[in-house]
Amino acid sequence: MSDDPTDRLDAVDRRAEEGFEDALADLERLLAQPSISATGEGVRECTALAASLCEAYGFDRTSTVETPGQPAVVAHADAPAPDAPTVLLYGHYDVQPADPEEWTTPPFEPTRRPGPDGRERIYARGAGDNKGQWFAHLCAVRAWREAGELPTNVTLLLEGEEESGSPNLDALVERHTDTLAADLAFVADGPIDQSGRPHVLMGARGLLYVQIDARGPNRDLHSGNYGGPVPNPAWELVRLLASMRDGDGRVTIDGFYDDVRPVGERDREALAAMPFDPEATREDLDVEAFAAGPGESYLETLLYYPTLNVAGFTAGYGGEGAKTVLPSQAQVKLDMRLVADQEPDAVFERFREHVHRHATGTVRLEVTRHARMHPQRTPLDHPVREPVTDAVTDAWGVEPVLKPTLGGSLPTAAFERELGAPCVVVPYANSDENNHSPDENLAVDCFRNGVATTARLLATLPGAGL
Amino acid sequence: MSDDPTDRLDAVDRRAEEGFEDALADLERLLAQPSISATGEGVRECTALAASLCEAYGFDRTSTVETPGQPAVVAHADAPAPDAPTVLLYGHYDVQPADPEEWTTPPFEPTRRPGPDGRERIYARGAGDNKGQWFAHLCAVRAWREAGELPTNVTLLLEGEEESGSPNLDALVERHTDTLAADLAFVADGPIDQSGRPHVLMGARGLLYVQIDARGPNRDLHSGNYGGPVPNPAWELVRLLASMRDGDGRVTIDGFYDDVRPVGERDREALAAMPFDPEATREDLDVEAFAAGPGESYLETLLYYPTLNVAGFTAGYGGEGAKTVLPSQAQVKLDMRLVADQEPDAVFERFREHVHRHATGTVRLEVTRHARMHPQRTPLDHPVREPVTDAVTDAWGVEPVLKPTLGGSLPTAAFERELGAPCVVVPYANSDENNHSPDENLAVDCFRNGVATTARLLATLPGAGL
Repeated sequence: MSDDPTDRLDAVDRRAEEGFEDALADLERLLAQPSISATGEGVRECTALAASLCEAYGFDRTSTVETPGQPAVVAHADAPAPDAPTVLLYGHYDVQPADPEEWTTPPFEPTRRPGPDGRERIYARGAGDNKGQWFAHLCAVRAWREAGELPTNVTLLLEGEEESGSPNLDALVERHTDTLAADLAFVADGPIDQSGRPHVLMGARGLLYVQIDARGPNRDLHSGNYGGPVPNPAWELVRLLASMRDGDGRVTIDGFYDDVRPVGERDREALAAMPFDPEATREDLDVEAFAAGPGESYLETLLYYPTLNVAGFTAGYGGEGAKTVLPSQAQVKLDMRLVADQEPDAVFERFREHVHRHATGTVRLEVTRHARMHPQRTPLDHPVREPVTDAVTDAWGVEPVLKPTLGGSLPTAAFERELGAPCVVVPYANSDENNHSPDENLAVDCFRNGVATTARLLATLPGAGL
Repeated sequence: MSDDPTDRLDAVDRRAEEGFEDALADLERLLAQPSISATGEGVRECTALAASLCEAYGFDRTSTVETPGQPAVVAHADAPAPDAPTVLLYGHYDVQPADPEEWTTPPFEPTRRPGPDGRERIYARGAGDNKGQWFAHLCAVRAWREAGELPTNVTLLLEGEEESGSPNLDALVERHTDTLAADLAFVADGPIDQSGRPHVLMGARGLLYVQIDARGPNRDLHSGNYGGPVPNPAWELVRLLASMRDGDGRVTIDGFYDDVRPVGERDREALAAMPFDPEATREDLDVEAFAAGPGESYLETLLYYPTLNVAGFTAGYGGEGAKTVLPSQAQVKLDMRLVADQEPDAVFERFREHVHRHATGTVRLEVTRHARMHPQRTPLDHPVREPVTDAVTDAWGVEPVLKPTLGGSLPTAAFERELGAPCVVVPYANSDENNHSPDENLAVDCFRNGVATTARLLATLPGAGL
């Protein structure tokens, strides 16, 4: 037997292929179990099922970790070699709600049938987001175990409330740093590129979601009898918002960009290498032009800079025609996508200070924080990049698209912050997985590539000098 | 018989009192007839009823004038004296919709019972707004006719779609300037002062109601995957609105104040004489402070300056908690109360130009005009002020509050513009008439004072040198 575990991949692949139909049947059993964290439906049953599947697929120790919300499953599969590296595989077993009326086949009755392109898919809520993706890890671990020695220690962390914003994940990681310690945190989540190429994502933007409630008069007023001297809470919010952003789309909250990691040469190279057609995107979205922004290009603005997005503005009359009202209340919801090395708490404080400094004092203002996630970014020259890229390239037969970060947010920053582990995201689902939508599905060949990706990752990590 | 018609008022009052119970019965018959211009329910029946009541109460010529919408009733009662002045009395016979569920007694079953203060009221939709008020004119004309010669020519104009924004009134007045020609346009509408004192209102603010629709991407987007470079239509509206108003609450649309009639010494005197307690108003509305504005005082800002009021702002998510969305669309509704001598069309053009000049060009904008009413203001030193004030003072036994203008809007500017007639508004209804609300009502003693006011007005006008 060779010392290089990549030499044993043929045997691992054979084992995975032999067990593939059984694995699909187990995945369908997992998908048939509702686990809707928004309502709690079936979550506990799914915790038990996920844990039992870990046991069945060859993990050595599986435990259920309670949180103030839904429990997590933590499973370990140990590599015999004393110097074997450790990978933390993160996924979530909870799913979005699903309205059966909108589905072709019931969301919790997994159905295998061809998709629009003729490729076989499994249709079920959670197929792509995220059960099918982490289940590929189980298949890879079992195949390695059946083919011989596991080359990398595996810790699997399955969360039960990702679709509810992962409110307890940070604390869980903080409390279990020993159990979860790893050289790499690896997340299979999201869809691959529309071109069919996989992605390697070296980070995710963070999130700060805030709301400002403005209260003017204690009741809606006739705009003729009171309009002018009586303060209008919608005007107050318009003024406040306008004070937060200049004509070039830059946020003008004091210190907002202070902690933004500068964009370097290597970053710009990575952006230039990404397949992106601005004109096709503009046409797809049917916008007149893109907004001005702090970055030098569309992708730089999207991936390297924070945003201040008006997610909702609600005041007064929104129906047909005219109603002359001076509204009593107005509300704005804002989401800020944060980038390394911004701290959500610090940004929130700056935001709140800005609101108070620019308030007119005529209406009452209340600032609420709804959600926060830290940004996370693994440097592009980090040594994990190569073994991950190699594993993905070999499994998919094509070079992955390297993205410095996801535009969206993932609750993965705690792995870097608490465990000191770099974090990389590699999506396993097809680009039309319909996550969060009716007819969610996972292409069977993508699932197969996912199993192969995890199998290869466990082989490439030992040589990476982590 | 004296030459001074005021000497004949005792006889007129006696006649009015003798016929008072019959008049209330007729008013109840009028109130029992629904006439909802929003739905059309009962409007035509009410047109006929109103016309027949004019005939019955002694008008010489009554006609129904068709419009593209609901018809108006025009009735004339001629004074024999060749030099008798003419008053145009304007009212409307249509009413607001009414949900019987919310009423103590059915809205179209007029009920006489004591109000919260023990004074007898008639409860019915339209009691105060506006059937009960113009019906007082009929009673006054009949009493004069029964007591002797009518001293003033009376033209009564009853509109059938005031509650729908009077879309056809301007054109009707334009087409019938001969029939409607008058020395004074007089409107009994709205409630008296909370103190129990009546009002004499020398004008009304105008109205321009506009909407801006902003369209960004062709669908709601994930704020993480697109936020930053993709334009957000809510931000576009925030920017546009903020560009229209400075920190002192002054509208910064080019030329917005150009046609505003300057506030003179006499205006400030009238404002100073108005009973107004800013602190009580602030407490009643429970606002922290009043807004800065162009006027030197609350009342000056309210009555002598135009507004730019955000009546509605709707974009993105307005529900509970957080939803990270980059909205496809945003909408703002604005009402502008205009003052003499602003022209709604000219202001609209300035508004539209401002929007186009300040647009970023990244999102599509559409500007719609929903409604417009011209402002109207009769100078405080106009010769009609004295006979009106005398009539009101004598009828109510107390000096009226003189208001240079109503903060709200009335479709009365056409009388000044097309007929050259000054226009004065004197409310006859109690301050808690609940117009537009459930349990609308008219205090019987207010109605009696209304009859006396019209009766006196017909007597005071001939000596006013109009």
